[in-house]
Amino acid sequence: MAIQVAVCGPRDCTPEERRNAYELGRLLAGRGAVVVCGGYTGVMEAVAQGAHEAGGTVVGVLSRADREGANPYLTVAIPTGAGEARNAIIVNSADAVIAVGGSWGTLSELALAMRRGRVPVVQLGGWRVYDEHGEVVPGIRYATGPAHALELTGLWP
Amino acid sequence: MAIQVAVCGPRDCTPEERRNAYELGRLLAGRGAVVVCGGYTGVMEAVAQGAHEAGGTVVGVLSRADREGANPYLTVAIPTGAGEARNAIIVNSADAVIAVGGSWGTLSELALAMRRGRVPVVQLGGWRVYDEHGEVVPGIRYATGPAHALELTGLWP
Amino acid sequence: MAIQVAVCGPRDCTPEERRNAYELGRLLAGRGAVVVCGGYTGVMEAVAQGAHEAGGTVVGVLSRADREGANPYLTVAIPTGAGEARNAIIVNSADAVIAVGGSWGTLSELALAMRRGRVPVVQLGGWRVYDEHGEVVPGIRYATGPAHALELTGLWP
Amino acid sequence: MAIQVAVCGPRDCTPEERRNAYELGRLLAGRGAVVVCGGYTGVMEAVAQGAHEAGGTVVGVLSRADREGANPYLTVAIPTGAGEARNAIIVNSADAVIAVGGSWGTLSELALAMRRGRVPVVQLGGWRVYDEHGEVVPGIRYATGPAHALELTGLWP
Repeated sequence: MAIQVAVCGPRDCTPEERRNAYELGRLLAGRGAVVVCGGYTGVMEAVAQGAHEAGGTVVGVLSRADREGANPYLTVAIPTGAGEARNAIIVNSADAVIAVGGSWGTLSELALAMRRGRVPVVQLGGWRVYDEHGEVVPGIRYATGPAHALELTGLWP
Repeated sequence: MAIQVAVCGPRDCTPEERRNAYELGRLLAGRGAVVVCGGYTGVMEAVAQGAHEAGGTVVGVLSRADREGANPYLTVAIPTGAGEARNAIIVNSADAVIAVGGSWGTLSELALAMRRGRVPVVQLGGWRVYDEHGEVVPGIRYATGPAHALELTGLWP
Repeated sequence: MAIQVAVCGPRDCTPEERRNAYELGRLLAGRGAVVVCGGYTGVMEAVAQGAHEAGGTVVGVLSRADREGANPYLTVAIPTGAGEARNAIIVNSADAVIAVGGSWGTLSELALAMRRGRVPVVQLGGWRVYDEHGEVVPGIRYATGPAHALELTGLWP
Repeated sequence: MAIQVAVCGPRDCTPEERRNAYELGRLLAGRGAVVVCGGYTGVMEAVAQGAHEAGGTVVGVLSRADREGANPYLTVAIPTGAGEARNAIIVNSADAVIAVGGSWGTLSELALAMRRGRVPVVQLGGWRVYDEHGEVVPGIRYATGPAHALELTGLWP
C-alpha cells in the first residue's frame, strides 16, 4: 500500500498558503503518496488540486455525512458524518502530517497528531505553541517551504 | 468523482460468499467504481482482491486506529479508530450498499443504510428481517448473483 | 458506579410502545439504573419521562452536535455530532440493551449490541431476524412486557 | 436540564493542577452544574472527585469502548470507542470549556472548542498559542484560579 500523507490547513487561507499547499500536493503525488485532507476549500482544495493535476490519489475525509461542499479534485470522498471528530480520522490515516497555515481546526489536527505520537508532524507557517515557561513545546518540525516539508517527514530519505 | 459502492459482509464467510464478493469486486472495478469496504478479512478481503486484480481503487474503512490486520488489497486505508461506529462511515460513503452473506456486523450496516434511506441497498444471500406481522420489512433488494446485484443498484442503467 | 441500561426504539412509535417504554423507564429508575437512550422523541422520550418522573438519571446520547430536538426529560445530554454512529456509543454504554418496537435505526442498535456480544440484548415487540435457512438468528431474548424485559437482562437476579 | 461544563487537562499533572481541578469540581457541583470530563486519571480524576464529593453529577466521556481505566468518581460513563475523537464529543457537550494545565490532548480540546466557537473557553495555567506575528491568538480567557475560571465562563453572572 502507498504511503499516506495528511495535509491540513484552514479554509480561509492566504494566496501564499494556497500556493504552498498546491505545490505540496504536486510533490506528494510525484512521490507516489496518497494525499489525505479534509476535502473542502482553502488549503484542502489547493493540496487536492496539486495532487490531482499531478495524477495522484486524493482522499477527502469530510466532516459532513454527504459530499456537499467537497472540492472537485478528490479521488475518493469519505463523508464521515463525524463533524470535527473527523480530524482524528485524518490524523490516524497518515504516515506523516503536514500543516500549512494556522487556524483552530488546523491546530486541533496538529495537537491530535502530537497526542498520537507515532508519525512525523511538520508545519509550514502557521501558529506556535508555547508552554508555561515561555518555551516552544518541542516535537513539531518547522519547514521553510514545500520541498523542505517533504524532507522533514523523513519518509523519503 | 467516481461512483463509490460499499460491499459489506462477514469476516467468517463461506467459500460461495467469498467467490461472490470477489466477482463483485471485479465487476465494480470494471465499471470504474471505487469499492468501499471494512478492510479486513472474509468478504471484505475477497471484494478488495477482486477489485484490486481488476485494476480498481479499494478503500478500507477500518475500525482500528491503525492499519493492523488490514488486507493487502487496499489502495487506501482509513483507520478511523471508531470501532463498529465506522459502519456508519462506510454507509455514508456509498452510492449503493451491497451485502454478501449475513452477520450481526453486516446487519448493522444494512440497517444503517436503510435508516439513511438515500441509496439503493442490495443483499446477495444473508439474513432477512421480518416485522411484527411476519412480513419481510420492505426496501432491501435481493439479488441472485453478483451481476444481478450490480443491476439492482440501478447505478448503471 | 450505577448499572447503565440502554433503551432503544423508534421515533414514530405506537401508543403501546410508548406505554411500555415509559414503564421500563420507571422500573429501571426504581432499581437505581441509569437509563441511556437516543435522547429524542417516541420511545426515547417515553423511557426518559418514565425514568425522570421516578427520580432516575437519564442520559441522551444525541446524533446532533447540539441539543436541538432533545426531549425535556434528560439529566445529561451528550451531543455527539456523530450522526447514526452514535448508536454504537449507546450500545457501548450499556450493561444491557432493551429495544421496544422496530425500525431500521433500532435494528442497527440491536445488531451492534449483538456484534459487541458482551451484554444481554432484549426485545419487547419489534422485528425478527431470520438466517438463510429460515430460522431465527439466536441470541436476542424476547420479553412479553416491561417487567419481563428487566428480568431477562439478568442484572437483578 | 442542568448546565454542563467540560473540564479538560492532562493525565500526568502537577499537584497544583490536581488541586485546581479538584476545587473546580467542588465549585461546579455547588452551582448545580454537571461536570463532563475525559473520565480517566490526572486532572480528569481530580475534577471528578471534587464534584462527586460535593454531591454533583460527573460524566466521563471515555476514549475506550469499555469502562477499563475509568476513575471511580463518575456518575455516568460513556465509553465512546472513538479514541481521541471523543474530545470533540466532550466539547460538544459543554456550555463552557475549562482547561487545567497543558498537554497535546488538552490542546486538541481547546482548539476544537475554539473551532466550534459557541461557548466560552477558559484556561487555568497551561500552554499558549501564538500566531505568525508572535501575538497570542485571541479568544481564550485566562483565569488566575478556580473561582476566577468559573467567573470567566460568564454562566453565573
